[in-house]
Amino acid sequence: MKRIGILTSGGDAPGMNAAVRAVTKTAIHHGLGVVGIRYGYAGLVAGDFVTLTAENVDHMINMGGTFLYSARYPEFAQKEVQEKGVEQLKKHDIDTVIVIGGDGSYHGALALTRLGINSIGLPGTIDNDIPYTEYTIGLDTACNTAMQAIDRIRDTASSHHRVFVVNVMGRNCGDIAMRVGLASGADAIVVPERSYDIKAIAERLKRGFKDGKDNGIIILAEGVMDAADFRTELLKYGEFDCRANVIGHMQRGGAPTVTDRINATKMGNYAVKLLLDGKGGLAVGMENGQLETHDILDLFDEKHASEESLIDINEEMTK
Amino acid sequence: MKRIGILTSGGDAPGMNAAVRAVTKTAIHHGLGVVGIRYGYAGLVAGDFVTLTAENVDHMINMGGTFLYSARYPEFAQKEVQEKGVEQLKKHDIDTVIVIGGDGSYHGALALTRLGINSIGLPGTIDNDIPYTEYTIGLDTACNTAMQAIDRIRDTASSHHRVFVVNVMGRNCGDIAMRVGLASGADAIVVPERSYDIKAIAERLKRGFKDGKDNGIIILAEGVMDAADFRTELLKYGEFDCRANVIGHMQRGGAPTVTDRINATKMGNYAVKLLLDGKGGLAVGMENGQLETHDILDLFDEKHASEESLIDINEEMTK
Amino acid sequence: MKRIGILTSGGDAPGMNAAVRAVTKTAIHHGLGVVGIRYGYAGLVAGDFVTLTAENVDHMINMGGTFLYSARYPEFAQKEVQEKGVEQLKKHDIDTVIVIGGDGSYHGALALTRLGINSIGLPGTIDNDIPYTEYTIGLDTACNTAMQAIDRIRDTASSHHRVFVVNVMGRNCGDIAMRVGLASGADAIVVPERSYDIKAIAERLKRGFKDGKDNGIIILAEGVMDAADFRTELLKYGEFDCRANVIGHMQRGGAPTVTDRINATKMGNYAVKLLLDGKGGLAVGMENGQLETHDILDLFDEKHASEESLIDINEEMTK
Amino acid sequence: MKRIGILTSGGDAPGMNAAVRAVTKTAIHHGLGVVGIRYGYAGLVAGDFVTLTAENVDHMINMGGTFLYSARYPEFAQKEVQEKGVEQLKKHDIDTVIVIGGDGSYHGALALTRLGINSIGLPGTIDNDIPYTEYTIGLDTACNTAMQAIDRIRDTASSHHRVFVVNVMGRNCGDIAMRVGLASGADAIVVPERSYDIKAIAERLKRGFKDGKDNGIIILAEGVMDAADFRTELLKYGEFDCRANVIGHMQRGGAPTVTDRINATKMGNYAVKLLLDGKGGLAVGMENGQLETHDILDLFDEKHASEESLIDINEEMTK
Repeated sequence: MKRIGILTSGGDAPGMNAAVRAVTKTAIHHGLGVVGIRYGYAGLVAGDFVTLTAENVDHMINMGGTFLYSARYPEFAQKEVQEKGVEQLKKHDIDTVIVIGGDGSYHGALALTRLGINSIGLPGTIDNDIPYTEYTIGLDTACNTAMQAIDRIRDTASSHHRVFVVNVMGRNCGDIAMRVGLASGADAIVVPERSYDIKAIAERLKRGFKDGKDNGIIILAEGVMDAADFRTELLKYGEFDCRANVIGHMQRGGAPTVTDRINATKMGNYAVKLLLDGKGGLAVGMENGQLETHDILDLFDEKHASEESLIDINEEMTK
Repeated sequence: MKRIGILTSGGDAPGMNAAVRAVTKTAIHHGLGVVGIRYGYAGLVAGDFVTLTAENVDHMINMGGTFLYSARYPEFAQKEVQEKGVEQLKKHDIDTVIVIGGDGSYHGALALTRLGINSIGLPGTIDNDIPYTEYTIGLDTACNTAMQAIDRIRDTASSHHRVFVVNVMGRNCGDIAMRVGLASGADAIVVPERSYDIKAIAERLKRGFKDGKDNGIIILAEGVMDAADFRTELLKYGEFDCRANVIGHMQRGGAPTVTDRINATKMGNYAVKLLLDGKGGLAVGMENGQLETHDILDLFDEKHASEESLIDINEEMTK
Repeated sequence: MKRIGILTSGGDAPGMNAAVRAVTKTAIHHGLGVVGIRYGYAGLVAGDFVTLTAENVDHMINMGGTFLYSARYPEFAQKEVQEKGVEQLKKHDIDTVIVIGGDGSYHGALALTRLGINSIGLPGTIDNDIPYTEYTIGLDTACNTAMQAIDRIRDTASSHHRVFVVNVMGRNCGDIAMRVGLASGADAIVVPERSYDIKAIAERLKRGFKDGKDNGIIILAEGVMDAADFRTELLKYGEFDCRANVIGHMQRGGAPTVTDRINATKMGNYAVKLLLDGKGGLAVGMENGQLETHDILDLFDEKHASEESLIDINEEMTK
Repeated sequence: MKRIGILTSGGDAPGMNAAVRAVTKTAIHHGLGVVGIRYGYAGLVAGDFVTLTAENVDHMINMGGTFLYSARYPEFAQKEVQEKGVEQLKKHDIDTVIVIGGDGSYHGALALTRLGINSIGLPGTIDNDIPYTEYTIGLDTACNTAMQAIDRIRDTASSHHRVFVVNVMGRNCGDIAMRVGLASGADAIVVPERSYDIKAIAERLKRGFKDGKDNGIIILAEGVMDAADFRTELLKYGEFDCRANVIGHMQRGGAPTVTDRINATKMGNYAVKLLLDGKGGLAVGMENGQLETHDILDLFDEKHASEESLIDINEEMTK
């Protein structure tokens, strides 16, 4: 084993740079070279490579985004494109690859492994929608960013006895909404995993105001509905001063939290060791707080298991 | 002079509580009583009063929102309603009033003064749209909140070589957009005060990417257009990976900045002194960094003067 | 079971208020009353009680500190003082108690249980120094606060090619230092759990500067040594521009993070259910990400197990 | 005029990078070249120059510290060393220089101007201790950083009915202390500009606790005394639970605020225009909110005028 190639793929997530730093530093510690592959699989095929040194990742631990850039590249599903990528890697003495991204990007890692380039996938997405892991790099930062925005919104809600319907990120996975909702003391959390009763939500809000609450907050995963549409629905069941807000892309950026930096560092460090052990085709995940691996192939049949009990607990926080 | 009534009116703004605290503490220092009037002019007429002590404003300096609450109450434009309010004040030994809010709420302060209750208006709104003042309480916090959100958005923009069109608050006044735009290094700032050339903006973005920039940011005052519509327009002049974001109500809340706390404190302190001097019907403002007053009546004929030179400077930051 | 008494004891920690809120809301959900006991065990004996309603804990989820206040009260080790406390509880129809604090404060919970008042201990301290739990309420916020301070310090360190020795909290437990150190990309992490070689640290710093690093950061648990003394020692082994900083009490305060709010809420919710099940004399902890309980008595023979592997990983981040 | 050299000198301050960016972008806009001089005057003499382009300052607007680095270099007081610097500049076609730093660093700018290199000084220091300016780049960020730390400390103070004596930066100038103190609702602000009566402060704290305040905060400019020593003194006049904290170097770093970014941008932009007008030997400052210039020579006879009225207002916030 000579050199590790590393790329980021899919949407950026805070902590991706910390993971790249950890891979680079660990590899150097073990006498290996590291090559940054820019623009994900597109750059792999184009040979857009940059040698990484300890010094040029030194200031990366607290940077949001991905300094290696990311890009869509559906062409990598084709075998001949994959082979072009392998050629590029071989030409540059790269014999192993680490991919940081969503589970969509793991397909490429599996393909590379099958073509003789041992590759490891690290879960890098704020959405926490990857099977066999309770945590993805960026989740904690995104949740804190959204929660801090909602803390601000609650100030305004309280000043005017107002209800806010707030979209947080999460297409098919309600993990951000569940975490942010419980942490924000939301009156209701609406996610794709659970059905909801908008009339019951309206009743609860009315009861709250009657009992002396001065605000109402509904956290709504964007995959369920637009906040504006939910607001329209809600107003059918009560007369509220009600506004819709979309937290939006700011959830993707920013300096990572302690948890995201630590986990990104642990995972980057672990991925190098897996490669040193001759492993490939594996996805790294966290289960019960511990790092684990699964065959990438196994992930494709599986769905991410959300911590839905957070919703049950939130329900107990209401009368 | 016995007791000062204080109310907040219009949209809440960070620093309103700091101003209420300053009024309360200054009044007590000078041997006067202070009464909080809840829910703005509605509470004034309803007699929703609460005595304020040094102790119950002690923890208010860093709280967002307004703990006195705010409410719409167009009825206060009617003379007989105003007189009802004056009755309530007299019944509770309140002979002066301080109103914190937008210039719309100054009408009430003027009416009260004409009815024998000396009243002073303090500029409390994030929008900075009040005549004869370069600053309104809450402006600085709102700008910092928006700018920090855009710093996060830029991480994502850079990771994907993407353009973001971002709505910040400001209906008829582009001050937030100008300040946030210059502070964010925006490629373009679009405000109600100035015409804009969307084709030129598109050309500038293209030139930027060609020259090696990895992101594009357009700051758009919400009064001009929705970010989503601007995006649609922009895409007619170029092929960008482009997203629209609305920062939204989070701009209104949160712990105030140093500047907002200091200015709110100065203004609250100053308002009490004006009342002690027997003044009424005045609006407090800041000009060239100094506190000044104008007759409230004069404000209604005047328009707020924005610091449009910020846009000119921003233009010089581009090629 | 009628009413739950709740108190906070020992040093305050972010999330204590979120836990009090969760206990209150869960109890009300299950038809129970909740009484806040102010000033810890001192208030218990003095009968300084306040009825808690859903409404008065509504705004508490994001407040730092403890609104129930905390106080030292070593007298509660005496049996006759404990009995006075039990009398007060009985007089006020309080038949169960939840204590949030460090393991020192669990002694009181055990004593109350033995006197017939079922009591549960929740781990509330930033220090993470309690046996049988990998997490204490406040840890995550404290770590993020310290890390953000160090991000700022690194800006200055880099600008001047300077070394900073930074004290973070942690008397006998290095968990804050380990987490903050790894998350900050520290050149060295010095904790009570491990011996250290100051000469080797100096050599590493020299090597770093020679290789192009522009700063050096040493994270030092305050229980090991004062930063100023460590600096003096370090300068014996090299000529650095070196400064000492103590992050200090700011680590204790502030709005809690998502993790601290969620875990505080889970733990508060869980404690009520334990009491409903007739349990007492138990300490709630988190092991492998799951809530567990242990007899309080068992904790006194045990030491907290730190995640020392974080130090090993950090070592691999250096050459 | 061909190329502008730019350097940062003295302690780093948030906004220095924003100023370098503004100089670079403005210069390019006007068809001029810009050269970054690394490590201040030391790098000027050593010829440590780097060409700056719009692209390499693009991401600098929100970075703390100074990416051009800073260094002490007292040797630049010597004429022959200055002449060596001028030689280096001429060799690299640099005919004008902008210096960002404290007024100590203006000596070099004046010397260069006298040797035929028109030079402009920009006030870059968090301390706000420069004559003829009410604002220095970095002041606003430093004040907000310190204030936010004190907001956290107040949580702990309140939880334990404790007094905190907090050192903020400021050797001979109390501006940070005055601003932070007023914004934090401090019980006392102690600065070099004013004498203080420690006994009166102790009495005020006692009165506060008696009247129901749950905390005490004293903001102490570090130039007056160490917080620990002040605490010792204070305890002679009352029995307080009292702790000393030093905010320390974190005040120097971090992403700049809106105000610091805007003012740094305005000042950088203005400095280029002064050079284009053939000016040199001038210091840029802000008076009554407007940019002004003074001969650098005039600054050396003058003392910075602090806004001491902030202390008077703070006194009125107490009984």
